[in-house]
Amino acid sequence: MSDYVAIGIDLGGTNLKVALVYSTGAIVARAAQPVEAGQQPGEIIDAMVTLSRQSLADAHLDDSAVIGVGVGSPGPLSTSRGVIIKAANLVGWENVALRDRLGKILGKSVVLDNDGNAAAFGEYWAGNNHDGHDMVLLTLGTGVGGGVVLGGQVLRGHYENAGEIGHTVVEPRGRACTCGKHGCLEQYASASAVVRRAMEGVETGEASSLKAMDTQGDEITAQTVATLARDGDAWCQQVWEETCFYLAVACINIQHTFNPARVILGGGLSCAGDQLIDGVRKHFSAMSWSLYEDFPQIQLASLGYDAGVIGAAGLAWQRFSSTN
Amino acid sequence: MSDYVAIGIDLGGTNLKVALVYSTGAIVARAAQPVEAGQQPGEIIDAMVTLSRQSLADAHLDDSAVIGVGVGSPGPLSTSRGVIIKAANLVGWENVALRDRLGKILGKSVVLDNDGNAAAFGEYWAGNNHDGHDMVLLTLGTGVGGGVVLGGQVLRGHYENAGEIGHTVVEPRGRACTCGKHGCLEQYASASAVVRRAMEGVETGEASSLKAMDTQGDEITAQTVATLARDGDAWCQQVWEETCFYLAVACINIQHTFNPARVILGGGLSCAGDQLIDGVRKHFSAMSWSLYEDFPQIQLASLGYDAGVIGAAGLAWQRFSSTN
Repeated sequence: MSDYVAIGIDLGGTNLKVALVYSTGAIVARAAQPVEAGQQPGEIIDAMVTLSRQSLADAHLDDSAVIGVGVGSPGPLSTSRGVIIKAANLVGWENVALRDRLGKILGKSVVLDNDGNAAAFGEYWAGNNHDGHDMVLLTLGTGVGGGVVLGGQVLRGHYENAGEIGHTVVEPRGRACTCGKHGCLEQYASASAVVRRAMEGVETGEASSLKAMDTQGDEITAQTVATLARDGDAWCQQVWEETCFYLAVACINIQHTFNPARVILGGGLSCAGDQLIDGVRKHFSAMSWSLYEDFPQIQLASLGYDAGVIGAAGLAWQRFSSTN
Repeated sequence: MSDYVAIGIDLGGTNLKVALVYSTGAIVARAAQPVEAGQQPGEIIDAMVTLSRQSLADAHLDDSAVIGVGVGSPGPLSTSRGVIIKAANLVGWENVALRDRLGKILGKSVVLDNDGNAAAFGEYWAGNNHDGHDMVLLTLGTGVGGGVVLGGQVLRGHYENAGEIGHTVVEPRGRACTCGKHGCLEQYASASAVVRRAMEGVETGEASSLKAMDTQGDEITAQTVATLARDGDAWCQQVWEETCFYLAVACINIQHTFNPARVILGGGLSCAGDQLIDGVRKHFSAMSWSLYEDFPQIQLASLGYDAGVIGAAGLAWQRFSSTN
C-alpha cells in the first residue's frame, strides 16, 4: 500500500492543516493556511479541497492514490452523521454536513471526528507509545481536549461526545468555566489557564518576575510560567504545582474509570517536557491508592502538532482500507 | 433454550448467593448462606457447589441443563485469568484461582468478574432500562461499586479494573478514604458514608433527631437519614444534599468521559427512591454544561439485590451460549 495515501485534515480555531499520510503514519506532503473567526463553512471546505489538491501535486500523486479522507474538527459533532453541530471557535457554524459536502467535491469517502479523538488516534496509531494498549490523550492547549482509544477503537459514546476529559470536574465549587460549570480541568490545566491564573495572582499582588515582564510588554506563555517556576520564582512554582496537582487528579480519575495502560499529555503545555511529567507523576504517586498496582504510565505525546492530521488520516485508513 | 440455565453466583462480604437463571434473565431457583470473614477459599468454593446443586434439585433440573457459571466477586481480580487477586472483605484471600477450581468441581465453564461489573451487566441485560444503550451503574452500599457497559460489553480496561467509579476523586483534599486517597466518591455517597457523616456531625454538636435516636439505641441507617431529611431535620437535609451533590459531580464526570445513555443508581442508598434521584438530578442540572445536550438519564436500578446473581448468570450466557 506504499503508493496509497489518506488525506488527513485538522480544522483548528487558528489553522487549517492538511497532510497526505501513508499507511505507516508517515507524512508525504502537507499544506496549511490560517483560519479567520468569521470564515463560513463553504470557504473552509473550498480551502480543504485546494490544500488537498496542492498536496497531491507536491507529492506527484494523482487522485486515484487517495483511499479516503479523515477530518478532525472542534465539536460537538456527530461522527455517525458526519455533521459539525457547533464549532466553538468558528462563528456561525451550526449543523454543517461537512462529511457529505467535502466528500462530494473530492469524490472520496470522508470520516469526521472530534479533534481530540483524532489526535488520540494519531498517538495510538503512529506515536512512540504504540503497542495496541488502551490509552487516553489529554491535549493541553487553549482548552483541554481529550480522546480515548479502547481496544483500538476511538470511544465515542451514546451521544458521540465521550472523552471530553477537559470538562470533567476536578474542583467542585472551583473556578468558573466557559461551559457553564465550575471546576473543570480545563480551568486548571490548559496552557491558557496557566497564564490566566498566574497573571491574576500578579494583579492581586503576588511577587513574581512576571510583573516586570508584563510591564515591559513581554509575551507571557505557559512556558514562561514553567521556566520561571523551574528557576525559583515562588508564585510561578505555586501555579505550576497546582496545575500538576489537578492533572494528577484527572489521571487518578482516568485510572479508575478506563484503567488504561497510559495517559498521554500533549498540546502547548507539554512543551515543558519532563518538568510537566515529573510534576504530574509526583502528585499522582502521592495521591494514588494502595489496593492494586493498576497505575497508567503518564507520558508525553510524541507527534507534536502533527497528531491531528496524522490521526485524522489514521481514522480514514482504519475506516476505508480493508488492508489496514 | 427455555430448559437451559446459567448458574449465577454473587460472592459478597456477608452473603453468598446462587441462582439458576434462564436466558430471559428470569430466576428459576435460588439459594444463599452467610459468609464469615474468616472463611477460607476452599470452604466458600464447596458452598458454591452445594448451593448450586441444591438449586438444581429444587428446580428438578439435572446438570446437563447448565450452560455455564458466572461468578461476581469483590476485587481486584483478573477476569482473563479467572483469579481473585485480593478480596477486600475476605481475610487471607489472595491469588485464588476461583474460575479453574470451581469449574473443575462442577465440570462447567466459569466466568469470573468484579461484583460491580456483574451487577451492571445484570441491569443492562435484564433490568427495566434495557435498550442496548451504553450505561454506567453505581451501587451505593457499604462502599460504592461501579460497572460500565459499552456496546453490550462490560468495560474491563488494560489492568482489568475499570469502572471503579467509587474511587474517583470528587473532592480533592477531601475526606480520607480506606484506599489511601482523599475525596473518593465512596466517602460521600456510600450508604455507610451517609451514616458516618451524619453521626460525626451529631457528635460535634449539630442539632438533629439522630441524637435522641442514637441515645435510645435505635439503629441508624442511610434510610434513617433520608427519612429525617424528608421530614425537615435540618442537619440530615444538609448531609443528604451534600450526598446528592457529590453524586451529581460523579454523574457529570461520567457524562464527559463515557457519554452514556444513562447512569443507574443501585445499592442500599437507592432505597430512598425518588428522594435520591430527584436530589441528584437537581444538582446535576444546576451544574451541567450549556454546550450540548448530551445528558445521561439518571435512574434507579430495577433488579434490587438480585442484580449480582442475574448479572453473573448473564455474563455466563454471553460467554458460553452461542445462541444468546
